[in-house]
Amino acid sequence: MTTTSSFGIIETKYFTFAEPPNELTLKSGVKLGPITIAYETYGELNRDKSNAILVFHALTGDAHAAGFHQGAQKPGWWDPMVGPGKAFDTNKYCVICSNVLGGCKGSTGPASINPKTGKPYGLSFPMVTIDDMVVAQKKLIDHLGIKKLLSTSGGSMGGLQALKWATMYPEAQASVILIATNHRHTAQQIALHEVCRQAIMSDPDWQNGDYYGKSIPARGMALSRMIGHITYMSEKSMDEKFGRKLIGKERVGYDFSHDFEVESYLKYRGDNFVQRFDANTYLYITKALDYFDLSEEGDLVAAFKKAKASFLIIAFTSDWLYPAYQSKEMVKALRANDADVSYIEIQSSYGHDAFLVEVEGQSKLINHFLTRMENEEVHGHPKHRH
Amino acid sequence: MTTTSSFGIIETKYFTFAEPPNELTLKSGVKLGPITIAYETYGELNRDKSNAILVFHALTGDAHAAGFHQGAQKPGWWDPMVGPGKAFDTNKYCVICSNVLGGCKGSTGPASINPKTGKPYGLSFPMVTIDDMVVAQKKLIDHLGIKKLLSTSGGSMGGLQALKWATMYPEAQASVILIATNHRHTAQQIALHEVCRQAIMSDPDWQNGDYYGKSIPARGMALSRMIGHITYMSEKSMDEKFGRKLIGKERVGYDFSHDFEVESYLKYRGDNFVQRFDANTYLYITKALDYFDLSEEGDLVAAFKKAKASFLIIAFTSDWLYPAYQSKEMVKALRANDADVSYIEIQSSYGHDAFLVEVEGQSKLINHFLTRMENEEVHGHPKHRH
Repeated sequence: MTTTSSFGIIETKYFTFAEPPNELTLKSGVKLGPITIAYETYGELNRDKSNAILVFHALTGDAHAAGFHQGAQKPGWWDPMVGPGKAFDTNKYCVICSNVLGGCKGSTGPASINPKTGKPYGLSFPMVTIDDMVVAQKKLIDHLGIKKLLSTSGGSMGGLQALKWATMYPEAQASVILIATNHRHTAQQIALHEVCRQAIMSDPDWQNGDYYGKSIPARGMALSRMIGHITYMSEKSMDEKFGRKLIGKERVGYDFSHDFEVESYLKYRGDNFVQRFDANTYLYITKALDYFDLSEEGDLVAAFKKAKASFLIIAFTSDWLYPAYQSKEMVKALRANDADVSYIEIQSSYGHDAFLVEVEGQSKLINHFLTRMENEEVHGHPKHRH
Repeated sequence: MTTTSSFGIIETKYFTFAEPPNELTLKSGVKLGPITIAYETYGELNRDKSNAILVFHALTGDAHAAGFHQGAQKPGWWDPMVGPGKAFDTNKYCVICSNVLGGCKGSTGPASINPKTGKPYGLSFPMVTIDDMVVAQKKLIDHLGIKKLLSTSGGSMGGLQALKWATMYPEAQASVILIATNHRHTAQQIALHEVCRQAIMSDPDWQNGDYYGKSIPARGMALSRMIGHITYMSEKSMDEKFGRKLIGKERVGYDFSHDFEVESYLKYRGDNFVQRFDANTYLYITKALDYFDLSEEGDLVAAFKKAKASFLIIAFTSDWLYPAYQSKEMVKALRANDADVSYIEIQSSYGHDAFLVEVEGQSKLINHFLTRMENEEVHGHPKHRH
């Protein structure tokens, strides 16, 4: 298995809801339109369009999951997992990745121009939920003429989308792969998001969301990303990577400049983020995550009742942002519905980041699972065979 | 055992290094003086001054550990633990608590007036280390005429001070009580501090530390405190306290106002902090914490070689900021030195906050340990009796 990309140049495509009504009624009741969704595809769709897999990105991801854009130095965010012979094997499957509604990577979001005013929406953009993102994705899949996906799959926030697909469109996929995710956010997860939002909203440059064409809230953005990175790593992986190593110094500086490598790493990640992401999208999407609750503040077993897919659920031992017990809650609720569920907790020290870096362990599981799904789609599900 | 205070009105006292040289040469090599240390005492010192216990406060604590200040609604920060019949029993012991050098609660720190300029030091205040704090405390204890403390004790940052006392002044205490602490900060602990510092330093009102008499960096302070509070609680205690409860709402607001109780709790704690603490002190003290390494980037067993005290080390199962394994590292290194060490991991869901709230479990342990120390001081340590 190679970890470099196996594609030629990849281009992002755009789908705009053209036919009337060219708008969505969002979960909040507000109407939004027109809507464009950015997406990419890898591998070929077969004749009966039965080999498509929809993968969902995490909080700050985008439609560019694999391969290289023209002139790019780095491939897409899940390139080690998507390609010929990889976890999502594009020799067999057509993988589709779409940017979320509310995003800032080609899909309609707060940085988009509001056709009614000719100016960026900013905070006049309506609140979007995971449900709304999924409704928009479904329109894309319908547009592509795909009746039933072989799988919907995502890690972290991507898992929330997959969960919603499984219950909102139970006939639209044969299987669901949930990685390092949960069915609703706990108080700690909400708290961490709220601190990140406050970091951005406390930055005077945020200007109540009306910063487009002016100074961006760079300090707040960098801060929120620094917090994020601490939560994506485990205590152990952070200590193994940085420990107490100093940055090219013999001793500490006895001042407020950076002394430790971990400090400059966080600054680097923070500053880098400012260049590549929109602050308002960060606010909108973290709210969507916090609002999400598959059980709608009720019974998770009942929420899964509608789901018909087979599930593969993966968690990582050192992930403290989406701890394994949260995956196990879903496994339990699915089993209470007599659903077909495989659950694996992968031993890893990488924390939440494991879903991006533990390629080998995940690849074997996903490969095997997808092959089984493919066979069952052709030959019938063992449960329903008789 | 009562959890309300058992003292009358408590007054903070102040000790200024009066005799020449009225300055300290700090670990960085810089000289600082004159220096005032705020402190309080509870209980009576006996005739031979052998019943004194020095307790150390945590990051944002102060000298006011127990009892009530004139007109105050709330007692000192460790009142459930310090008083007649309590963990630190003031019927038997004289408990002393001193504010740290660099603090903002009566001790010399960045908000103090620099006698050379007549203005607050701000960032011209020299970097102080845990070592420097301990040297200043030792001068206070000498000034009080105490040759040997029955115990030095502290939780969190307080534990770092106790560790330094144990190795810098091995003859100056019979015992050391370390609670929810460690011998040096890991990359994650440094990272969390760095984010808090950046939150303050990114606030335009911080003005490079020169904000005294102007607007204080309130937004940055509040943010850093919000982050702190997330780390002081466990995921479980946060979920038990808040879960996904909404603030007096039937449903979420689909906007950026607070929806969840955990959000408004963090805001309350953040805003409250702004009123009671100095931003620069927060910067200085977190740096002192990050710089601290009992082993001086070397061997912890060797670092403990000089220590002569008996040790009681307490950790809490759900503390992820100062996890129990870090206490165990100290236990192991002390045992390698054949030291007298008792170690207890208390089952608690309160996270790092447990050292402030798990009163009953700690009280029994500390009471028992101190009684043993008292007897051994009178009758001789069993190890050295023959």
